[in-house]
Amino acid sequence: MADWQIISGGITAPKGFRAGGITAGLKPSGAPDLALIVSDVDAIGAGVFTTSQVKAACVDYCRQRLQAKPTARAILCNAGQANAATGSQGWADAVESAQLTAQALGISHEQVLVASTGVIGQRIKMDQMRSGIPKLVETLSPEGSDPAARAIMTTDLVPKTIALELTLDHRPVRIGGICKGSGMIHPNMATMLAFVTCDAAISPHLWQEMVSRAANKSFNQVTVDGDTSTNDSLIALANGESRTPAITEPGANADKLEAALTEVCMYLAKSIARDGEGATCLIEVQVSGAADDESARKIARTIAGSSLFKAAVYGRDPNWGRIAAAAGRAGVLFEQNELRIQLGDFLLMENGQPLAFDRAAASNYMKQAADGAYLKQDTVLVAIRVGHGDGVGTAWGCDLSYDYVKINADYTT
Amino acid sequence: MADWQIISGGITAPKGFRAGGITAGLKPSGAPDLALIVSDVDAIGAGVFTTSQVKAACVDYCRQRLQAKPTARAILCNAGQANAATGSQGWADAVESAQLTAQALGISHEQVLVASTGVIGQRIKMDQMRSGIPKLVETLSPEGSDPAARAIMTTDLVPKTIALELTLDHRPVRIGGICKGSGMIHPNMATMLAFVTCDAAISPHLWQEMVSRAANKSFNQVTVDGDTSTNDSLIALANGESRTPAITEPGANADKLEAALTEVCMYLAKSIARDGEGATCLIEVQVSGAADDESARKIARTIAGSSLFKAAVYGRDPNWGRIAAAAGRAGVLFEQNELRIQLGDFLLMENGQPLAFDRAAASNYMKQAADGAYLKQDTVLVAIRVGHGDGVGTAWGCDLSYDYVKINADYTT
Repeated sequence: MADWQIISGGITAPKGFRAGGITAGLKPSGAPDLALIVSDVDAIGAGVFTTSQVKAACVDYCRQRLQAKPTARAILCNAGQANAATGSQGWADAVESAQLTAQALGISHEQVLVASTGVIGQRIKMDQMRSGIPKLVETLSPEGSDPAARAIMTTDLVPKTIALELTLDHRPVRIGGICKGSGMIHPNMATMLAFVTCDAAISPHLWQEMVSRAANKSFNQVTVDGDTSTNDSLIALANGESRTPAITEPGANADKLEAALTEVCMYLAKSIARDGEGATCLIEVQVSGAADDESARKIARTIAGSSLFKAAVYGRDPNWGRIAAAAGRAGVLFEQNELRIQLGDFLLMENGQPLAFDRAAASNYMKQAADGAYLKQDTVLVAIRVGHGDGVGTAWGCDLSYDYVKINADYTT
Repeated sequence: MADWQIISGGITAPKGFRAGGITAGLKPSGAPDLALIVSDVDAIGAGVFTTSQVKAACVDYCRQRLQAKPTARAILCNAGQANAATGSQGWADAVESAQLTAQALGISHEQVLVASTGVIGQRIKMDQMRSGIPKLVETLSPEGSDPAARAIMTTDLVPKTIALELTLDHRPVRIGGICKGSGMIHPNMATMLAFVTCDAAISPHLWQEMVSRAANKSFNQVTVDGDTSTNDSLIALANGESRTPAITEPGANADKLEAALTEVCMYLAKSIARDGEGATCLIEVQVSGAADDESARKIARTIAGSSLFKAAVYGRDPNWGRIAAAAGRAGVLFEQNELRIQLGDFLLMENGQPLAFDRAAASNYMKQAADGAYLKQDTVLVAIRVGHGDGVGTAWGCDLSYDYVKINADYTT
């Protein structure tokens, strides 16, 4: 049994957090485009950021901030302009955005983290930023998770939100999260912006470790199109307002908190894949029998990211040959005669050889699974075994449809 | 000036080679599906094969053959069934195919190499093979390159053929090649099947080295969809029938031959990208300023393989942000402030910062380039510089269109 339960409230479910989101005029569409998350008190901050050589100014800014001092009070996020590949002017814009936010909140600018998403190479529209931030601060509310989740969206179709409650020493602790996809989703740190709030009290070092491990099992295992972004960031704040005893070393409480944090990140990561550009369903790839977990995760990612396999899923085509081919090129050694492939309940391959199976029924499983007929909502499940090792890993992706091409063929024009 | 000229004749342009192709009934479509290339005398054989852990029986077979003795008389290739993931039965089918071919030709079965392409996990239809091979042998002709090139096609729209003539010690030497794509095209050994014939006399070791280096600069720099296949093979035969002096060590003659061989491989590789599934144009990505050639090639491959960039090219969208983002995640260190990006004649970025440019004119360049208005036929050219190193590299890809999804959503059904 899980040690936690799902609750409402998103990132404002944890005590002592407020949030808000407005239309500041950054997006041409007029959709909400500026979000703010604020902790009433200093929170421990941890982050995982893109590994790309071409990084947005906000990524450099947050890394520097958190390295200098791992605490923060606020996260400002704009959608519309990515502020990546914008040089020293982009850096100045990031700094000014943090300063404006700090001013409006009456806190130090060093306590403000910033994130951006949108078109790469475009500066943030600073006039709209300057007039928008004070208005945004006025909308902050303990029920503000949903407007914030909506304001960080770009091509996402739905806002992505989760909150869990667990108990530590018989007292409730909450973790909330929001995120956005939905193109450029791939390890490492993939798409994507994710913000997690938590009211547990925890030491900075432990919190950063937990957040990094959770990211490896979740966001780094999600792929939509193989493109890692310049802006990918997971920022997690823990403010201690649950008044539970501070977690300062590994142990049962730390394990419980990390399990719940990982669950939040996995839920958000799957939401991103499910809402991948043009996706009609979620693909879950489970790999077992590898030499170690990292090898299993690598194979899972490669299958979930294969364009040929993704197109086959879109066509509801039980083309296990493409699964086998993707596994084979993952860069992980295994014995092809031990390969076993299962699609839903259909065993398609055993000992590296294809089995006779009812192709129409398997295709029908894919249709129904994609339509959400089974327990795992709208999920096509692939389980493969590559040997007799202990390594296991899961990755998530989505199918490749006409709409992916349509959405991405004219994003800037 | 190039040291060679383009000639007609394809793989039968070199002296002492015959080829043929027939419809044996392996493909459901009734299109030609069985090809044979034969050298009148023993030829030196070299091969480069897929690095996938899941390999077709024919790949294992050819590797073993060429390792045991680097000579061959014939290459048999079937299209329709890939004979990959077919276990011991697949191996037996590959061996029998070689034996049947040897029998019909009156040579030893050890002198026959085999290749397959088509649906993974399907055995070769051996009844059709058994009745087809004797008929195929009857069609062998010194003008048989074109039927052979057609019989190895799967989803390819056009056959892919080239032949060059050069002189060594004032005497003519010829190199010919055919290949097929067109999904599952990616390093290493990408898609794809390629067969090269040559009438130079050369030592086995030198020939294998040349073939490997040529593959690295050509086939391994082509990507259509990031999926490396189970069957990818380049097989090259050199039979000495030009009666030119044997090349037994590095030197001027070896260099001339390798340059022409590389040209043949690059031409074929580009043909594959140009004919990528659903492609409307070829993308050529030139990278300079890297620390070394391999780093430059890696960045070039990553850009050419980016789904987001490929979709932008399909939309004729000069979205240099996606070029920068792809370069950044290639896994090669560089200073983002030194990044320079050029699209055709349009300079889009310098010193890591975007430049003002006429977006409509740049989009128009992409339209016209894709339509073949410029010297480089139907090629959209991207040139980037990542620093001040000496490393250069080029990769080729194609745009990502609706038709890619359509072709791959129902290949087996």
